[in-house]
Amino acid sequence: MGRVKITDAQRFMSDCLKAVGTASKAADLQAALLIQADKFGHPSHGLNRLEMYINDILSGACKPNNQPKILKESQSTAWVDANNVLGATASQFAMDIAIKKAQETGVGWVSVKGSNHNGMAGFWSQMAADKGLIGMAFTNTSPLLAPARSKQAALGTNPVSVVAPASKGESFYLDMATTAVAVGKIEMQLRKGEPIPHGWAQGPDGKETTDAQVAFDTKCLMPLGGNETTSGYKGYGLAAMVELFCGILSGANYGHHVRSWSHAGDGGPANLGHCFVAVDPERFAPGFGDRLADCIQHWRQLEPTDPNLAVMAPGDKEKKAAAEAEASGTVSYVQQQIESSAALAEKLKVKPMQVEVDLQ
Amino acid sequence: MGRVKITDAQRFMSDCLKAVGTASKAADLQAALLIQADKFGHPSHGLNRLEMYINDILSGACKPNNQPKILKESQSTAWVDANNVLGATASQFAMDIAIKKAQETGVGWVSVKGSNHNGMAGFWSQMAADKGLIGMAFTNTSPLLAPARSKQAALGTNPVSVVAPASKGESFYLDMATTAVAVGKIEMQLRKGEPIPHGWAQGPDGKETTDAQVAFDTKCLMPLGGNETTSGYKGYGLAAMVELFCGILSGANYGHHVRSWSHAGDGGPANLGHCFVAVDPERFAPGFGDRLADCIQHWRQLEPTDPNLAVMAPGDKEKKAAAEAEASGTVSYVQQQIESSAALAEKLKVKPMQVEVDLQ
Repeated sequence: MGRVKITDAQRFMSDCLKAVGTASKAADLQAALLIQADKFGHPSHGLNRLEMYINDILSGACKPNNQPKILKESQSTAWVDANNVLGATASQFAMDIAIKKAQETGVGWVSVKGSNHNGMAGFWSQMAADKGLIGMAFTNTSPLLAPARSKQAALGTNPVSVVAPASKGESFYLDMATTAVAVGKIEMQLRKGEPIPHGWAQGPDGKETTDAQVAFDTKCLMPLGGNETTSGYKGYGLAAMVELFCGILSGANYGHHVRSWSHAGDGGPANLGHCFVAVDPERFAPGFGDRLADCIQHWRQLEPTDPNLAVMAPGDKEKKAAAEAEASGTVSYVQQQIESSAALAEKLKVKPMQVEVDLQ
Repeated sequence: MGRVKITDAQRFMSDCLKAVGTASKAADLQAALLIQADKFGHPSHGLNRLEMYINDILSGACKPNNQPKILKESQSTAWVDANNVLGATASQFAMDIAIKKAQETGVGWVSVKGSNHNGMAGFWSQMAADKGLIGMAFTNTSPLLAPARSKQAALGTNPVSVVAPASKGESFYLDMATTAVAVGKIEMQLRKGEPIPHGWAQGPDGKETTDAQVAFDTKCLMPLGGNETTSGYKGYGLAAMVELFCGILSGANYGHHVRSWSHAGDGGPANLGHCFVAVDPERFAPGFGDRLADCIQHWRQLEPTDPNLAVMAPGDKEKKAAAEAEASGTVSYVQQQIESSAALAEKLKVKPMQVEVDLQ
């Protein structure tokens, strides 16, 4: 492990994107998205993703300096063509529209095609929450999820995110893949040499596996809920719902037509679909923020099963990680990440990150 | 088991509601909602619920002949006071508004307070899909779900439902509780004298139990995803999201403030909250129905893990059950249900259902 100053890690990510021709504004926004994931303790969606974006720009699969545009709109909806820009540029453009429409009519619903990976979905929902709105963001992704009973993957890890502002400085923050776990969690068990729990992933025979290597090689994740006995068809249904809001509604690539991860950078444009929704709670019953804060505080004080593991409200884990990162001014990365970033710095002739070895 | 003609079961449910003073229109709608659940193979939400509604009317907790009203509205939103009518009356009133607003502005988002149990959520989403829209319905319910790490329940089974029309006569139909399973599934294992799988329910010590009796007595269901290892916090987050859209947004009872099941009929008005959303897919990319049908058909032909268990699209199970019920013109009920319905008929002086004993 090594520690890097937050400002330096963010500078490095932005510099790399600029080095491959991305305009400053787009590079800075994409770097802000990535560093937030690292601060939130979701390293899979942080610096770890940088190289994929760089490869897509270098291969011409992503055009970071294009402009997204509205193809069609009504009072509360917009259909956007991201025009193959970086996912962050497309997402900010679209969520801005959803926010404006929610401020005008109570709801804004924006569907985006022609986009690229847009990082941690919650980052975009948070944009709406920062304006006092309920924000929602969804995106489709490459096929990795096996529908209940299926031997093959047909949907992505398709996240659902909802963020809402509450009174007393509280907020509701939900950002979850609709698979039981992300591939990164399997990778972690593999590194530790430990098996994976039931309900995470399938082997090539379509059956649950607890072998981390088999799971990693097969890349066929189980939906949230695991197998049929524990209602895995619900997680499958949720992933399909996200696809309905994203690729199917926007006319982007959808479901089984989305390029696979292994082709990142050499499979042509990703043409991903996203969906952004903003809803104004002020249009409904007064006291929304108070009721939400009451729930959040109630959940935290529930009697825990294990006295050492307090019940958390959705988002508490992320907020705690971010507060710790802010307090130290640093984020930490695994050795492999540090090495690949150093190699990237050399390749792109960018000033490398300054790493302090973490002795923990 | 016994079989009853669909028309006779529906007539019986409507008659019982009318016998306790419900006007015909409201009684017929509530009966249509219940019979649809029985046809869909979800008996927990069908005739099984009738007695709870009757008890609520008899105790004065529900006022079936009141009128719901709009308290506040904007171009794309409405806040509705159900005024303590039956859940079906409130839901039809609210979804009608959501549909009209979606037809005008692209989206309608309606939040309802002061309501009662509104049956199978998908029934209301289907109303929007029947008009060519994407329909969504959510409701809060009595606390039964234990948040991840909690010994106590704090949220309901809070369902999410999404229904959307596709080309080629297909549709997407998702209607799922955000708990791993419903209480009814535990009851079924109890009757069979079999244990329940891991990941369904907790015992009084807050730990997973496989003892059906302990699970049934504790009434503390695990969220979709099961324990923390298999991401049960995601199901908890989804249940909380539904509460945010329902009780919290509408100012109804919410979360831990919702009356418990055991008080049904003697705990005063339920004051439940619902949320109904309609979105017009025509405001986005042309070809929505074709892409959705393509996915549905793709999912069905995926190679199954067990050659005898074909992969299904969300809603296939319900549609198959409904087609079988339509073909035979009957629905079947367990013996206990038949007996309690006969007792109810006698109590309310209503013509009983005519039951054919099912020899299966």
